[in-house]
Amino acid sequence: MKRKSQAIPGPSPSLRNLSLAQGKRARLWRLLYGHGPANGTLMVLPLDQGLEHGPSDFFPNPPALDTSFQVRLALEGGYSAIALGIGLAEKYLREHAGEVPLILKLNGKTNIADDAEATSPAFASVEDAVRLGADAVGYTVYVGSPRQDAEIREYGRVRRDCERLGMPLVVWAYPRGRDIEAKGGRGTLYAQDYAARVAEELGADIVKLHEPVPDAGASPEPYRSLREDAEARLRRVVRSAGRVMVLFSGGVKQDDDAAVLRKVRLYLDCGATGVMFGRNMWLRPMDQAQALSRRVRGLLARYPR
Amino acid sequence: MKRKSQAIPGPSPSLRNLSLAQGKRARLWRLLYGHGPANGTLMVLPLDQGLEHGPSDFFPNPPALDTSFQVRLALEGGYSAIALGIGLAEKYLREHAGEVPLILKLNGKTNIADDAEATSPAFASVEDAVRLGADAVGYTVYVGSPRQDAEIREYGRVRRDCERLGMPLVVWAYPRGRDIEAKGGRGTLYAQDYAARVAEELGADIVKLHEPVPDAGASPEPYRSLREDAEARLRRVVRSAGRVMVLFSGGVKQDDDAAVLRKVRLYLDCGATGVMFGRNMWLRPMDQAQALSRRVRGLLARYPR
Amino acid sequence: MKRKSQAIPGPSPSLRNLSLAQGKRARLWRLLYGHGPANGTLMVLPLDQGLEHGPSDFFPNPPALDTSFQVRLALEGGYSAIALGIGLAEKYLREHAGEVPLILKLNGKTNIADDAEATSPAFASVEDAVRLGADAVGYTVYVGSPRQDAEIREYGRVRRDCERLGMPLVVWAYPRGRDIEAKGGRGTLYAQDYAARVAEELGADIVKLHEPVPDAGASPEPYRSLREDAEARLRRVVRSAGRVMVLFSGGVKQDDDAAVLRKVRLYLDCGATGVMFGRNMWLRPMDQAQALSRRVRGLLARYPR
Amino acid sequence: MKRKSQAIPGPSPSLRNLSLAQGKRARLWRLLYGHGPANGTLMVLPLDQGLEHGPSDFFPNPPALDTSFQVRLALEGGYSAIALGIGLAEKYLREHAGEVPLILKLNGKTNIADDAEATSPAFASVEDAVRLGADAVGYTVYVGSPRQDAEIREYGRVRRDCERLGMPLVVWAYPRGRDIEAKGGRGTLYAQDYAARVAEELGADIVKLHEPVPDAGASPEPYRSLREDAEARLRRVVRSAGRVMVLFSGGVKQDDDAAVLRKVRLYLDCGATGVMFGRNMWLRPMDQAQALSRRVRGLLARYPR
Amino acid sequence: MKRKSQAIPGPSPSLRNLSLAQGKRARLWRLLYGHGPANGTLMVLPLDQGLEHGPSDFFPNPPALDTSFQVRLALEGGYSAIALGIGLAEKYLREHAGEVPLILKLNGKTNIADDAEATSPAFASVEDAVRLGADAVGYTVYVGSPRQDAEIREYGRVRRDCERLGMPLVVWAYPRGRDIEAKGGRGTLYAQDYAARVAEELGADIVKLHEPVPDAGASPEPYRSLREDAEARLRRVVRSAGRVMVLFSGGVKQDDDAAVLRKVRLYLDCGATGVMFGRNMWLRPMDQAQALSRRVRGLLARYPR
Repeated sequence: MKRKSQAIPGPSPSLRNLSLAQGKRARLWRLLYGHGPANGTLMVLPLDQGLEHGPSDFFPNPPALDTSFQVRLALEGGYSAIALGIGLAEKYLREHAGEVPLILKLNGKTNIADDAEATSPAFASVEDAVRLGADAVGYTVYVGSPRQDAEIREYGRVRRDCERLGMPLVVWAYPRGRDIEAKGGRGTLYAQDYAARVAEELGADIVKLHEPVPDAGASPEPYRSLREDAEARLRRVVRSAGRVMVLFSGGVKQDDDAAVLRKVRLYLDCGATGVMFGRNMWLRPMDQAQALSRRVRGLLARYPR
Repeated sequence: MKRKSQAIPGPSPSLRNLSLAQGKRARLWRLLYGHGPANGTLMVLPLDQGLEHGPSDFFPNPPALDTSFQVRLALEGGYSAIALGIGLAEKYLREHAGEVPLILKLNGKTNIADDAEATSPAFASVEDAVRLGADAVGYTVYVGSPRQDAEIREYGRVRRDCERLGMPLVVWAYPRGRDIEAKGGRGTLYAQDYAARVAEELGADIVKLHEPVPDAGASPEPYRSLREDAEARLRRVVRSAGRVMVLFSGGVKQDDDAAVLRKVRLYLDCGATGVMFGRNMWLRPMDQAQALSRRVRGLLARYPR
Repeated sequence: MKRKSQAIPGPSPSLRNLSLAQGKRARLWRLLYGHGPANGTLMVLPLDQGLEHGPSDFFPNPPALDTSFQVRLALEGGYSAIALGIGLAEKYLREHAGEVPLILKLNGKTNIADDAEATSPAFASVEDAVRLGADAVGYTVYVGSPRQDAEIREYGRVRRDCERLGMPLVVWAYPRGRDIEAKGGRGTLYAQDYAARVAEELGADIVKLHEPVPDAGASPEPYRSLREDAEARLRRVVRSAGRVMVLFSGGVKQDDDAAVLRKVRLYLDCGATGVMFGRNMWLRPMDQAQALSRRVRGLLARYPR
Repeated sequence: MKRKSQAIPGPSPSLRNLSLAQGKRARLWRLLYGHGPANGTLMVLPLDQGLEHGPSDFFPNPPALDTSFQVRLALEGGYSAIALGIGLAEKYLREHAGEVPLILKLNGKTNIADDAEATSPAFASVEDAVRLGADAVGYTVYVGSPRQDAEIREYGRVRRDCERLGMPLVVWAYPRGRDIEAKGGRGTLYAQDYAARVAEELGADIVKLHEPVPDAGASPEPYRSLREDAEARLRRVVRSAGRVMVLFSGGVKQDDDAAVLRKVRLYLDCGATGVMFGRNMWLRPMDQAQALSRRVRGLLARYPR
Repeated sequence: MKRKSQAIPGPSPSLRNLSLAQGKRARLWRLLYGHGPANGTLMVLPLDQGLEHGPSDFFPNPPALDTSFQVRLALEGGYSAIALGIGLAEKYLREHAGEVPLILKLNGKTNIADDAEATSPAFASVEDAVRLGADAVGYTVYVGSPRQDAEIREYGRVRRDCERLGMPLVVWAYPRGRDIEAKGGRGTLYAQDYAARVAEELGADIVKLHEPVPDAGASPEPYRSLREDAEARLRRVVRSAGRVMVLFSGGVKQDDDAAVLRKVRLYLDCGATGVMFGRNMWLRPMDQAQALSRRVRGLLARYPR
């Protein structure tokens, strides 16, 4: 039930099709072709949930509270990169610097206050990323939050530093705030599709998105009336991200490995450059997490870009 | 039913009548006489709707979601310039740098939150524009918003950078916010006339405005009691912009080509320097868009400045 | 019915009595003795009403919408200076640079939002004033506004730049905001007297004030119980401004030339250094405006300082 | 009825007991031993009431509206220093620079808005103080205001500049805002005692406080239940200021000279370094003000530090 | 009733296991092995309660109002370090510089306003710490406050300065604000566990926490349903702090020395690096405070790291 058209772009833009400054190209090359599947796809292991959600995220798998777990998984599971904030990067990655690329996440917040006016302040800089030998930085933009101006402005400074220092920029494009909730919620196609486009207009190199759910009554038109299946929704947001490479997040943990793999295949079929799965990986025991990581990597190997 | 008077200025100020710093003159010359109609008028293709309104703006013409569409249209349609934010400019214009002038739009926002306290943060800089070889920058000022001080202050920094770097400054002068809604709305002659003057007092080189609609009961006097036709209203806002060149926006798409051309003729007759039509152009299929663009260009050719 | 006392200072402080840095002295000399009445008094033509009130201010005299009108009036009417924002100064004064001194107004706002929390952001700098050859800068302080801290802080930076660059500083000291309205309003002696003192304590060189109206029931004591005539009120605010030179504003237009002249005489008799009349001048036809300007100038000539 | 204990410090810390950077020592020496009583006590004449309260403060003694009055009083009355904002300091002290030390007050506000969220913005800098040859700067901290963070942060920058430039720092430690009012008000022992400690922890060299009034029902424990006489209250706040020298303010004018002198004696007996009396001095006719100043100075001479 | 598992880390990370920049290593070495127990544990005497709570905290032991008391106690009691703000550090520690390490506390606030939107502004800098020869800086982060973005952003600048200058960073990780109160309060395991993780993700070297109390009905799951004893709760927050060294605070004074010692033993048994006890020490008479300090130090001596 694919709805392809001539105008629909193919799979994600490969490095070969992008014209880039030398430093950014070198770093992106390492992410896309130097580590992980090394075929132009990306398999990123993120770990900022301790800050964003609190330690309760680790309760299902207590060893994962110790970041050594995720670092070992990233190394032995063959990931393209690990995404960490400065505290974890400095304390756990130092002895493995260079072995696995680092995406330094620059901003973050707790979830103690609700997200009605969510804003995510930076506590690290692009220069920190250079100092630590990172190959990219990450920055969350709360698309549509009443305080989105704070992030867009700070993002602008981050982007200029990235330009100056040749650092790729990964945007966590997260619809958030009371207004998006009033328009159907953060997870809808409307919300994710808009977020994808925002990332492109703001100048991201890579965007992290969530798989969109169907819109319902509260969503604005024309989304409210769209009747698209999962694949069509995914292709749509990939298209809306344009030349920005799309990573889909895994969200809450799924116990069924096969379901995870089906998701990966679906995302890649729909044009994603890769996946950024955290809890779906590191909430499994190490051996299972590694086994699943290897299978995901094997899948990605079939989607050269 | 023209109401001309001795005091009414003629058509828009040409470059010949302006005393300018060398860098700004060089760039304005390229916009006015080096590209597009090349006779002192301007025909600008803007694309920031994906950020400002979301991808739904592209639904009527899916290929337009891919910015290559607009770049090709700007090139082959003979536009004076294309107006893009940094994300689109870097990813889609690089291979055509120099072929069509770039107006780098510096600020923007989503429309997820309503506009009661609208504010548009910058995420790119005048130095970015220089780096990309742009011939102007664009900046939105939400005239009358409760938070207008944020933009006027940031605008001041942009203006100084423009002065320092010889960069022309195009102001999107948009009445916005709960107070203008309480006074008749953003589209009235009162609102647009005020916005035109604000752009002049703030030091814009070029201002983008909307064709004003008649004032009604909520507008302040003396506007409320004015009974002017479309042409008189347009002439009035052009006069209020003084020596700032005025571009009129097309707003939502009109299906009737002839109606679009009538609008262009009307705007130019009333003293506008040109038009900045986005959706009215790139929501048409490429061949129709090019055809209409050529006709608009032909029209502008009859209004040398 | 004058109420003089030994303690009441005489007319406004002349340049001879002030100890000034060389650059500031040079510029003040040009304002006081190099142009206009050239006898130590000041006759300033201000034009920021298009930004502050919108183009409707020009409806009674449409030619005044074109700033060339005010520039011509300032030149031919023999004014001490013209006060303009950067947009008008750059576009209309360039060809006459040096012929009439410029007071570059640095901040401003629209009146679309009400003034309950008025704040006036700067969009030009003291360095802009230097670059344009201005002889002073102007800055509005909304005395008593709930957001007065924003202006006082920005004012502090402007003042330091003035000190560094030898630029005289004219403060538009405007009581404004919901609190002053609750205490009798912006125009009362209480409000204007306070504003005069604020200008002195903040370090203005020249202050623009309005002629105070009598206090009524809402004003704080001891003002509420004062029963002073217009002259006593004017003398009081001039005294409260101390060594800061006082210019009185004309406010809304008066059709009666003789009334305007009586006002000027009254202000100068009460110790003012001069007047800053905008609408009372440029809302008259050019020949009448010039005639009235010449009569005001003649009057000022009788008040050497 | 003194309640002394071993733990109660003696009189205020003299310069001999403080280890100071050379520049700060030089300036403090001039204040403490070079002018005024010149025995380690301080007698400061402040004048910022025109800004803080408006010109109505001068109504009881109109000549005091002219700052020449206070300057003459400071000079001829033998004060340790005069405390002025930059406007008054530049306009009235220039001809007497060096004759009487200047404490340049850096921040201030009007009392038009109420003090529920009081905040005092700086409009002058420590570098201004150096330029003017001042021997200290003054900065108001509104202890406990909902916006106290704004001042504490700005204070931090002022403090660092003071450190860098060797400038003593006098803190006007004023409890203020809706929360302190809900806890008994700004004048209580609770409030003043807290303010004294805040000044010490923030790093003031000298603190200006008010004589505390007894706490009542709204004050927090243990203050609510304290039953201390005026002397015990004063000693307590002096102790809470630690090694910060304490100046007590005079507050509203007292007509009885003997009462003023009794206050001075009480303050010095209780360990204060001196007094900062404004309205109690300059609201008297010059001859009376000088006579009272001489008597205060005579009193202070009996408290060498 | 210990609940150990393979995944539970052992006692706190020693300096030997951390890879550190030379300056930070040198300073941490002084704290951990050069002073106090000198075996890798920490015993810190904090004094910021005068600012945070007011002088009433000293009422039970009036001599402690004079900071000389705490300085003498830190010196003679054999502490690893004393934690002071800049005012106290400059005025009381100068004559003992080098004898006991200083942790310069950079930010703070009063408790006059309630903590619903608590925010703690910095009034000193990392450069101040270097100038004073401090061996660490302290910074409070109000985890979960509606204004937490202000601190996280300022913290980011402090952290970068620490990196640049080789200064260890101690975070007072304090859950605070209306949202944490709505979720069970600042003292629960949920709150303290989250705070511990935040400190690690933000990049602290050392974190100060409170001993957690059990969660109750308002706490989020899974904490609400946890039934862990005091030791299990402590071990949990130590684990959540990862490689960040944990100091537990003493909170309000306990009169029973044995109870204090039991607390210390419990904390060290559970993996803490040490304790930061203020009121429990300096609210005792000097001889008792020294005796208790010696006993605590003796206890710590049995936990080499």
